[in-house]
Parts: sequence; C-alpha cells; structure tokens
Amino acid sequence: MKEKSLLQSTICIVSGVMLLLAGCSSQERGDLEAVTAAVNDIWNQYSSSLNSGDLDRWMSLWTEGGVQMPPGEPPVIGKDQIRARNKGVLDQFTFNVRITNEEVGVARDWAFARGTYRATLTPKEGGEATVVDGKYMTILQRQPDGSWKIHRDIFNSNVP
Amino acid sequence: MKEKSLLQSTICIVSGVMLLLAGCSSQERGDLEAVTAAVNDIWNQYSSSLNSGDLDRWMSLWTEGGVQMPPGEPPVIGKDQIRARNKGVLDQFTFNVRITNEEVGVARDWAFARGTYRATLTPKEGGEATVVDGKYMTILQRQPDGSWKIHRDIFNSNVP
Repeated sequence: MKEKSLLQSTICIVSGVMLLLAGCSSQERGDLEAVTAAVNDIWNQYSSSLNSGDLDRWMSLWTEGGVQMPPGEPPVIGKDQIRARNKGVLDQFTFNVRITNEEVGVARDWAFARGTYRATLTPKEGGEATVVDGKYMTILQRQPDGSWKIHRDIFNSNVP
Repeated sequence: MKEKSLLQSTICIVSGVMLLLAGCSSQERGDLEAVTAAVNDIWNQYSSSLNSGDLDRWMSLWTEGGVQMPPGEPPVIGKDQIRARNKGVLDQFTFNVRITNEEVGVARDWAFARGTYRATLTPKEGGEATVVDGKYMTILQRQPDGSWKIHRDIFNSNVP
C-alpha cells in the first residue's frame, strides 16, 4: 500500500466531513431524479441535433475521451474520430431519430442509461430510406460544472 | 424535501464516519484493481461456461433482474427470459468464445466493463461455422456478499 500525502489525506478528511454533513438517502433519491432529467435532456438534444444535421451541437454532448460503439464497425475512440465518423454519416443521410429512455442508474459521477430508438435515415442523394428499430446503453460522466456528457455509447438493432 | 427518519439519519452519520475513517484515494484505487480482477474472472467464467455448454454456470453470473441486449432481437429481460433465449442458442451451437476486456470503471456498487470478443459458433447439426468479431459494454452490480454479477449486457459486431 502506498502512503498518502498530507494533501490527499486532507482531501479525504474534508470529503468525509462533507459526506457526513450532507447525509445520504433523500439526497441520493433526489440525485437520481435530477440525473434522469439531465439524461432525458441529453437525448432530446442528441436527437434534435442529429435531425437538424447540427454536428457541432451533437459533438458538444460527448466527453473528450468518448467512445462510440456502432454496429458493423470497430469502436470509434476519442472526439476527433467520433466527429469524422459521424460527419460522414450526416453528409450522407438526413436523420429522423426518436429516443425513448427506459432506465437510468447513477453512482457518484457516473450514470448509465438504457433505452430504445427509432431512426429513419434518408439518403441525401435520393433513394430508399432505411428505418432502424434499435436499443442502446450509454455511460455518462458528470462534469466539473455539474452537467453530464456521453462517455460511452453502444447500440444495435432490435430486428434481424 | 422529505424529512429523514432517525434511523436513516443514524445510518447516514455512521456511513459518513466510516467513509471519514476509511480515507478515499488509495481505497478507491484498490477497489478498481480488485473489481477489474473480479470482472476478468467473470469473463473467464462467461466464456468457459459457454464453451462447455454449461448453461447453469453461465446463468449464475447474472443478477435476477438482468437484461441481455443481443443484436437483431429485442432486449431479453429478466433471468427466466435470458435462460430460455440462451438455452435455445446453446442447443443449436457449440461455442468458442474469447473475451478481451479493455476497460473497467467502478463507482459504489456499480461497475461498467467494455471490450471485444471473438466467437466461433458451430452448428451442432453440421454446417458452416460462423465467426463473430464484436464489442460489448456491460453493467455489473456488486452483490451483498461482495461478489459481482452481470446486470446489463449489450454487444454488436465489429464488421458489416
């Protein structure tokens, strides 16, 4: 075991006292409600930015070290790769996405979300639209300013 | 805000004092190491039980309220449905699965894991084997006895 520095020990004691003063049970329940509202707001922004083709607004929902895990391709690691990959998709298709979040769990600065989505992708150059009924699971990370961002996101189809 | 009962307040104060006494930084780091080892052990059991066709052992890795989210079908909700669905798959195929976990995060009694897998499914009635290169993300829940179980699991292919 490594010894802790005085600063680390002080931070620990201060954190402990703050937790002690803050209490826990009703605070945790309130946190789940607040985080659920924040997650639903993120999904609203996620779908409305995709639907309007606003890549910058969609990108602002992600952490710097975000990882997107779409079906049919390797994991997309980091914000630069995520931007490049999704710029390609938004250049090709007009989106109509609706997200239905079904579950939120929260512990400290982490949350997970799970739900379903329905996406219609219409090729900008013409041709048949594709409809996807799918499900997703997402890890969100609480930011220093208290807001939440998407950190890990994986999804797949509900139909063969 | 609801008022807390005396019992709740006492639990909160006791929890706060325990956190205060326990310190945090080296404990959290130690927890991540221990949970990473536990998660790797679960993936070893996950693949070896699938590979030997041992449904009961594979099922023992799941929480009662587990949700499995395989590609190409709706979410499989609860242990009974998960057993029925995966019995069907194990009746049809011999598995050869290798899991490479790439990330573990832990907060309180929740952990998430992310990684890749390679699965060869050989039909028991003969015919061509299917090879899947895929990725997954999993939520695990710490149990009252300190062990971990799979609570949510979603995966998809890395190739089109």
